[in-house]
Formats: sequence, C-alpha cells, structure tokens
Amino acid sequence: MTFNVVVDVAWKEEILDPAGQSTAKVLQQMGYAADNLRIGKQIRFQLQAPDVAQAETAAREMAQRLLANPVMETYAVRVVAE
Amino acid sequence: MTFNVVVDVAWKEEILDPAGQSTAKVLQQMGYAADNLRIGKQIRFQLQAPDVAQAETAAREMAQRLLANPVMETYAVRVVAE
Repeated sequence: MTFNVVVDVAWKEEILDPAGQSTAKVLQQMGYAADNLRIGKQIRFQLQAPDVAQAETAAREMAQRLLANPVMETYAVRVVAE
Repeated sequence: MTFNVVVDVAWKEEILDPAGQSTAKVLQQMGYAADNLRIGKQIRFQLQAPDVAQAETAAREMAQRLLANPVMETYAVRVVAE
C-alpha cells in the first residue's frame, strides 16, 4: 500500500532562530502584530508499507535518523493512506 | 486576543526540489521505500487580532506578501485561538 507521510520539523524552544526573528521584524515593519515566529520544515513523501502501523514505524525512524536532528529539533509524523 | 498561526509553504508541483530528491535517494539507500519527497517550510507565530476572522485575513495577507513566494510556492494557513 502507498501512504502519504507528512513530517513537521521544528527547532526546540531553547534553540535560537535568527531567520524567524528577522521575518517577525519585517512583518512588524509591514504593520502586522506578529511575534515569536519560528521557521521549521515540512517534509512530505510517499511510502510503501504493508499497513498503516508499519508505515508509521518506518516514518518515525526516518524522522529520527535523517529528516530531523533530534539534538536541536522536534518532529511530528502523520501518516495517511492514499 | 492572541492567536497561534501555522503557515505551511510547499513548492508548486511543477517546481523541481533537488534537496528533496537527494533526501529521497538517501532514504532509499537506507532501505526505506520512500518516494516523491518534497521539502517545504512550516512557519509558526503568534498574532494579535480582535477576532479569528481578522486574524485569518491578516495571516493570509502575510503568507501572500512575505512568507511564501506565490509564483513558485503554495501555502495553507491555520489560525487557532491560544
């Protein structure tokens, strides 16, 4: 079966995000009341697996081993059957 | 009121994503059956607005004007009351 996987990767709270800070500053200069802006990644892919449980296990492994840096980043994994 | 805003930014389908292709290749070499991998951004921030409708309007404007490049990227905006 083919599954659609979405992995959201975000900086941990204690990690500075200078690009996010700059973006917030520009939004404020444009007149928007935005603050605490953080820029993360959203990785989408298709995954072949026998069932949703095995797809979720594999997707979590992929996030932990390659897609995120667990020292500095947190991640959330969603798996949806195609 | 303070709202939490999440903006997902993804490359349009017709735009190549070499970083995504490289990542898929590495995952395949690691033994995972992943394909069609695309790396987008997920931008999170807090926004002051009188109500959720005005927060959504402002967030969409921000995505269109600064957070995404509408020529090459699509975006999805979610607003949640804090």
